[in-house]
Amino acid sequence: MDHIPTKQDIIDAHERISGYIPRTPVFSNEALGRLVSSSVSVHCKMECLMPDVGSFKIRGVMNALLSLTPEERKRGVLTQSSGNHAQAFALVAKRMGIQATIVMPKNANPIKKRNVLEFGGKIVECEPGDASREQMVRDVQSATGAVDIHPFNDYRIIAGHATAAKELLENVPHLDVIVAPVGGGGLLSGTLLATHYFSPKTKVIAGEPAGADDAYRSLQAGSIQPNTTVKTIADGLITTLGDKTFPIIQEYVDHIVRVEDSEIAAAMRELWERLRVTVEASGAVSFAALVKERSSYTTFMDIGVILSGGNVDLDRIPFLKNISIFP
Amino acid sequence: MDHIPTKQDIIDAHERISGYIPRTPVFSNEALGRLVSSSVSVHCKMECLMPDVGSFKIRGVMNALLSLTPEERKRGVLTQSSGNHAQAFALVAKRMGIQATIVMPKNANPIKKRNVLEFGGKIVECEPGDASREQMVRDVQSATGAVDIHPFNDYRIIAGHATAAKELLENVPHLDVIVAPVGGGGLLSGTLLATHYFSPKTKVIAGEPAGADDAYRSLQAGSIQPNTTVKTIADGLITTLGDKTFPIIQEYVDHIVRVEDSEIAAAMRELWERLRVTVEASGAVSFAALVKERSSYTTFMDIGVILSGGNVDLDRIPFLKNISIFP
Repeated sequence: MDHIPTKQDIIDAHERISGYIPRTPVFSNEALGRLVSSSVSVHCKMECLMPDVGSFKIRGVMNALLSLTPEERKRGVLTQSSGNHAQAFALVAKRMGIQATIVMPKNANPIKKRNVLEFGGKIVECEPGDASREQMVRDVQSATGAVDIHPFNDYRIIAGHATAAKELLENVPHLDVIVAPVGGGGLLSGTLLATHYFSPKTKVIAGEPAGADDAYRSLQAGSIQPNTTVKTIADGLITTLGDKTFPIIQEYVDHIVRVEDSEIAAAMRELWERLRVTVEASGAVSFAALVKERSSYTTFMDIGVILSGGNVDLDRIPFLKNISIFP
Repeated sequence: MDHIPTKQDIIDAHERISGYIPRTPVFSNEALGRLVSSSVSVHCKMECLMPDVGSFKIRGVMNALLSLTPEERKRGVLTQSSGNHAQAFALVAKRMGIQATIVMPKNANPIKKRNVLEFGGKIVECEPGDASREQMVRDVQSATGAVDIHPFNDYRIIAGHATAAKELLENVPHLDVIVAPVGGGGLLSGTLLATHYFSPKTKVIAGEPAGADDAYRSLQAGSIQPNTTVKTIADGLITTLGDKTFPIIQEYVDHIVRVEDSEIAAAMRELWERLRVTVEASGAVSFAALVKERSSYTTFMDIGVILSGGNVDLDRIPFLKNISIFP
């Protein structure tokens, strides 16, 4: 796919994947609304409850792999990821009978590695860091001929990820605002396109960890500003925007809210307590961004929040080390 | 209601409450099935995801309060509980405009107390222990004239709780086994009746904490054997069976599996990791019982597991090493 997904591309993606993955629920919770403002309703799109893989990533992967030609399927597929994308990629490929190789950094979360192996994926390890990961992808690609599918800088992935916001807008049609997290920008650009096509009056705001704020800085500068160092508990959001996601974000996002790790941890705790779901740090960034700007929400607004993932290393729960109440 | 709920009573209860509380989802998870046996499918009834209150308790409470006469509503209602029943009771009474008083022990979980107050319930504190709680209920009852509704030894409550298993059997009609937890026996006796009426070939097994095993001992003895001391992390299951729940359990339960705190904590961790839901210790007892007897499940069985609640004190997560098992 060589163009920014159209409205029809997103409708097609949704039809393509919906026989294979269930609709995630929307939780509307009174107590969470009160944390923002007494007159606000918060509607959480529970991507963290996606069966088996625990994140939205399966949407884009399913769309991309279902779009392959029979010849491409035979060659096998290849991707790079340290986390949720890797798990979804391995599971979808296994279900479709396609051989999958995933380049993962040596220091990736062991739980996520275990899941990739349980789902039948083949892991090739690389040193941490962009350069050695890209090199390893090229090496595996030329050795095996596998089809390389980038985790976010790919229009098929973006069209698939757009279906999360499409579903949310179908469940709650009159949203004033949708808040989504931003890392490489696959989910955010999909959310922006779906909202532009299906509910153009709805504003989209992004939450980004302050310790990996390339999207915020890129918007200011008008060009991609890579993360040189990253420091955040939101380990799913440390990648830099790509040349396919940045223009979409530049055109449609309302603004980006940067949140500190302490704010992310506090948001996680509230979500766990109120929704009883183990939203991961990256998944809680959108709610943390909403709470940070809660003084803007004093009218009777309906706000959608995409809680993107729920894969937590239970030996390292951030809010247990760093308990803090919202400022 | 003065008789053991009939099939029609449970159908009526379900119709009565279903306009007010949503159907909880059923999560069928491959990885959880593999923990039991490679050929077993596990279907989890996610009562822990009940909105706002986070447990099945709202089913029985809703049924009981909707069954009151206008005159009884005016008098207000009264109950005793240290936990999930209290929250559900306060919320339902508030929504129906009925004044609610809840007798809670002084040492009840502060999160659960906070929720009761947030839901508009009035708390009357008592000393811990059956005797002082019962005395306080009588005192409040004679002072206010409020209608006393027992948390589990009440046929309206049992008929309401039966709707959880009814829904599970509607979603997954050919279950070979259902596993439910047992404390006072409200959920278990409802589960037994619903299964007897709607799927008589399905066996029902109960999980009980070894540190509060009155149901196990009562079945052996043929008469109610109260818990004199209790010691378990499953704080929702420490009550003793009542004279309305025991005969139903005696007649219909297949057997009761006692589980140790370490087994409950391990089950909790697996459920959190695989389902991404903060199932509480009492809610994990059913899955712990299933895992304990996993050598019995070698055929292609479909097993339903009721995960009854998700209200966890996040400062005291039993499976974390340095917090570990608490009394």
